Amino acid sequence: MADAARAAILPYFRQSNLETQNKHQSGFDPVTAADRAAESAMRDVLSLHRPEDGIWGEEFGESTGDSGRTWVLDPIDGTRGFISGTPTWGVLIALTEGEGPVLGLIDQPYIGERFVGVGGVAHATGPAGEIPLRTRSNPSLDQAILFTTFPEVGTKEEAAAFRAVSDRVKLTRYGMDCYAYALLAAGQVDLVIEAGLNAYDIQAPIAVIEAAGGLVTDWQGGPAHHGGRVLAAANADIHAAAVEILSRF
Amino acid sequence: MADAARAAILPYFRQSNLETQNKHQSGFDPVTAADRAAESAMRDVLSLHRPEDGIWGEEFGESTGDSGRTWVLDPIDGTRGFISGTPTWGVLIALTEGEGPVLGLIDQPYIGERFVGVGGVAHATGPAGEIPLRTRSNPSLDQAILFTTFPEVGTKEEAAAFRAVSDRVKLTRYGMDCYAYALLAAGQVDLVIEAGLNAYDIQAPIAVIEAAGGLVTDWQGGPAHHGGRVLAAANADIHAAAVEILSRF
Repeated sequence: MADAARAAILPYFRQSNLETQNKHQSGFDPVTAADRAAESAMRDVLSLHRPEDGIWGEEFGESTGDSGRTWVLDPIDGTRGFISGTPTWGVLIALTEGEGPVLGLIDQPYIGERFVGVGGVAHATGPAGEIPLRTRSNPSLDQAILFTTFPEVGTKEEAAAFRAVSDRVKLTRYGMDCYAYALLAAGQVDLVIEAGLNAYDIQAPIAVIEAAGGLVTDWQGGPAHHGGRVLAAANADIHAAAVEILSRF
Repeated sequence: MADAARAAILPYFRQSNLETQNKHQSGFDPVTAADRAAESAMRDVLSLHRPEDGIWGEEFGESTGDSGRTWVLDPIDGTRGFISGTPTWGVLIALTEGEGPVLGLIDQPYIGERFVGVGGVAHATGPAGEIPLRTRSNPSLDQAILFTTFPEVGTKEEAAAFRAVSDRVKLTRYGMDCYAYALLAAGQVDLVIEAGLNAYDIQAPIAVIEAAGGLVTDWQGGPAHHGGRVLAAANADIHAAAVEILSRF
């Protein structure tokens, strides 16, 4: 599925000025076209190999299946990054069996990098070959690296909550879309805090991060697989420290 | 030189938790080690092939030469991105002959992507093969994509100036380090605005962007190759629109 999505999306990535101008003239929107092409390509794979499973895709909605399994698809997470040419958007694929994801995949087609988590084991493939994913053990906020995509985060209250954590950490960085969750799974960063997410934005990151040893919850420490306000943390100690701050808001 | 820098840096990128812990225990800092290894590797290439040229490197300072040419080196631009594992830091190489750069190179070793500008011609090599670089022609702020690395930008006044432009554009994005300049050269974004830069941060981007058809100046429209407040723009019209706002500050 991820291979099919890659092949469908890459012809649209970093299109020329001419094609961007066409968008304004004819209504052609490369990112929408890429989104739809990728979700269609993934649905084709499922209809061939898993016709009994349900599908919930960002572009084409929900269809129920008979198996109790549902594939949750976000063909391009980070469309604003995509239209800016950054290599930090991704294809998100999750598999759920009732509550929450049991398998997750984050794919960055341009770099050729893929992060997969299932059954308590997570690994990445890409420019550095195949490597196991393991979150880091740093327990303290004052040594932490924190990511979110937009400095505005969400509502004013959500921005204030984020800032309360950001004021305590070593380094805050922006703009990485779903790639920030992959970096957390890879042991590179300690926290990702976002708000206003959809379920299909976070289910794949949940599965990858949990399989790599991290935690993903809402800002109160409850389940995050429905989306909304999300806190991803590298370990239980730093998760508790962030929840202690965020839960006041 | 860029090949030598790649080989020197990549062993240090995304090191394991163990090695990060070593940093705290023994003072070993992977990014400093990578910075020095890369600049040394580039200096070795120059001493072999261009012994008569001057060198100005971020890590090891200036040495004058007899040729009138100076190589300006930033072995890792975006160290905070580097320590976070993002693929948006870069190796910057510029060649000056007196005032301003005549050749520039931005290299992203992990992606394996390189952006080069010299003599009015710019191209990139990487995952998409070899492609010519050409900035985009959009003249209007309200259709523009704007990048900077940190939302704080610099001083409060500099942040206010940035915000005055940001309030007028379609999309503002953060966190890309020198990769934002490469995206501007590649026709993906319209403006990059930063402050507090060093000369070695901006000389390579200037050469790449100018060779791709764009402009790089300070916020008043004057030369930017000494660093400080920098405005990179895809074309003369959008450059003028941004200077008109920034020059008030």
